[in-house]
Amino acid sequence: MQRIAVIPGDGIGREVTAAAHTVLDAVAARHRLDLAYDEFDWSCERYTTEGAMMPPDGVDRLRPYDAILLGAVGWPGVPDHVSLWGLLIPIRRAFRQYVNLRPIRTFAGVASPLRDAASVDFVVVRENVEGEYSEIGGRLNRGFPDEFAVQESVFTRTGVTRIVDYALELARARRGYLTSATKSNGIVHTLVFWDEVVAERAAQTPDVRWDAEHIDALAAKLVLQPQRFDVIVASNLFGDILSDLAAAVAGSIGIAPSANLDPTRTHPSMFEPVHGSAPDIAGQGVANPVGAVWSAAMMLDHLGHPAAAADVQAAIEACLADPGTRTRDLGGTADTAGVVRALVAHLGG
Amino acid sequence: MQRIAVIPGDGIGREVTAAAHTVLDAVAARHRLDLAYDEFDWSCERYTTEGAMMPPDGVDRLRPYDAILLGAVGWPGVPDHVSLWGLLIPIRRAFRQYVNLRPIRTFAGVASPLRDAASVDFVVVRENVEGEYSEIGGRLNRGFPDEFAVQESVFTRTGVTRIVDYALELARARRGYLTSATKSNGIVHTLVFWDEVVAERAAQTPDVRWDAEHIDALAAKLVLQPQRFDVIVASNLFGDILSDLAAAVAGSIGIAPSANLDPTRTHPSMFEPVHGSAPDIAGQGVANPVGAVWSAAMMLDHLGHPAAAADVQAAIEACLADPGTRTRDLGGTADTAGVVRALVAHLGG
Ligand SMILES: CC(C)[C@H](C(=O)O)[C@@H](O)C(=O)O
Ligand SMILES: CC(C)[C@H](C(=O)O)[C@@H](O)C(=O)O
Repeated sequence: MQRIAVIPGDGIGREVTAAAHTVLDAVAARHRLDLAYDEFDWSCERYTTEGAMMPPDGVDRLRPYDAILLGAVGWPGVPDHVSLWGLLIPIRRAFRQYVNLRPIRTFAGVASPLRDAASVDFVVVRENVEGEYSEIGGRLNRGFPDEFAVQESVFTRTGVTRIVDYALELARARRGYLTSATKSNGIVHTLVFWDEVVAERAAQTPDVRWDAEHIDALAAKLVLQPQRFDVIVASNLFGDILSDLAAAVAGSIGIAPSANLDPTRTHPSMFEPVHGSAPDIAGQGVANPVGAVWSAAMMLDHLGHPAAAADVQAAIEACLADPGTRTRDLGGTADTAGVVRALVAHLGG
Repeated sequence: MQRIAVIPGDGIGREVTAAAHTVLDAVAARHRLDLAYDEFDWSCERYTTEGAMMPPDGVDRLRPYDAILLGAVGWPGVPDHVSLWGLLIPIRRAFRQYVNLRPIRTFAGVASPLRDAASVDFVVVRENVEGEYSEIGGRLNRGFPDEFAVQESVFTRTGVTRIVDYALELARARRGYLTSATKSNGIVHTLVFWDEVVAERAAQTPDVRWDAEHIDALAAKLVLQPQRFDVIVASNLFGDILSDLAAAVAGSIGIAPSANLDPTRTHPSMFEPVHGSAPDIAGQGVANPVGAVWSAAMMLDHLGHPAAAADVQAAIEACLADPGTRTRDLGGTADTAGVVRALVAHLGG
């Protein structure tokens, strides 16, 4: 048996994790997988009533699980930095989920805002536990004219090496081409160091071609020539920006998945759609469940069930191709339940 | 008489500043402007022979000028952080050019990679002297497994207030809508502070509507709905990323201009195209001069010649509309000299 912790979180996070759960049940039946689920109500609602996003021993309660499936975190009334640093980010860090993996591809039936987005297929490998998202910093002279805030970015050799090595390995298994996101022309301490480590590690992997692009030019190229990318390795902040941008280029943030991985498998990894809690459409049953379902497929892969993962992928592809089984945000006519029914049917359920 | 310091810099920087100079001569004749120019050979070539991008008293030599026209900085063989921090960035800082202004618009004749980029017209107001581009930081344990690099972002109340006030003023003079780029959900010290100052200043300007968007979502929206923006205010790094991305969305980085402004007019302001030195096409006479010419038009405006600036703008618009007077990067047939001839002819020269 493999045990999965489900954290639906806020807003449409609840609807899409429920959808993913149903799809997982269907594919588990088909492949005779033994998956067990426990649900945790950690959320902004909990924060409002209990004063904390999760209990003090939250991380320890998750520790025994084989994986975590998360919906979305954030709700109006709770400042984002409170909700995120009270739940999502501590989990990423406590479990050393140092890889944030974000595959990007175009699908028949999902229109890109670009004139030419045919055959876009790449992966953003985002550093997920250090870099620009740091707790180190603060404020001086609060409320006075000479007030200022500082924030420290921290890049370690260990941290940069392991993410670059992961990305090189992935590039080798794909089309053999790595792009490193940098900004060492402007940000001269951390990103010059990043560039050095990338060059060192890439030199050890001669069968991967690579280059480095400054984040400004790289963002532009994602729009001008998205086909040219295979694997992009990026710091925490740059990976965040590039993967949202890339999801938009591919046609929808509603379908984009992500995996927060501890590749050493010492701790549970966490799987979550890239989209947020979407207060504007929450509770209406119209949320696009594909981002969560695709994330669940990545979880199956990670748990050692690649055939089941591939079946879910194929079901997603078939559903997206048909306007009757796509949600409204993709120009379709289905609601969440309709997409789930179609996915389950494709899985023979 | 108004005196202009010209720094052609590297690669196509030389070709496009020469082009802009010729166009400025034509518009000056027409409007009877008295402009005088001095050229400075500060560049990577100078670095290679003399060991420095500019002389030690470089900044002081520029001080008496009314404006600076810059081409591009950077050349293979000289690390970017050396060339940029040896020339471009010190000028921005020494002259307190705290506004980096980057207008974005679509033109008839310039194809956007987006299906729908009609009537995109907005301005990125980028903070230009503090923020993420900081000299504060360094490295410990160099060469050892426990090596790490830190870099401090610094946001001051003075710095954030003045850039936000500039952007609010500009929004008021335009369509009255301001978007603040943030990432306060992940970067909790500096950007939470940024958000607070934006909210305070916007509350003082009730005739401007505003909202804040996280940089990841904002980058995605630039691709999905670029029409919805009017003025975007952003930190140094975020403004850099958003303006390159926006230039790509509008169809070309080759035409994008920028102004590094000291709005207090205590020091000279600097005008430069957004594109770089383009080693791949340098010296061939095919560079697109429009980014530099448009930057020169912004300079005319800043120097108090709005009618002359408008004439240059109109000439640019006419040239871009005709494939015979557009460069190859825009699907045209003209070389740099051909575009310049056409611009001069439009200006009655
Ligand atoms: C070259 C680089 C340091 C510079 C910057 O990021 O400021 C450039 O990209 C720009 O936008 O002017
Ligand atoms: C909500 C936010 C802190 C988070 C991040 O930037 O990491 C999100 O944007 C993501 O990409 O997972």
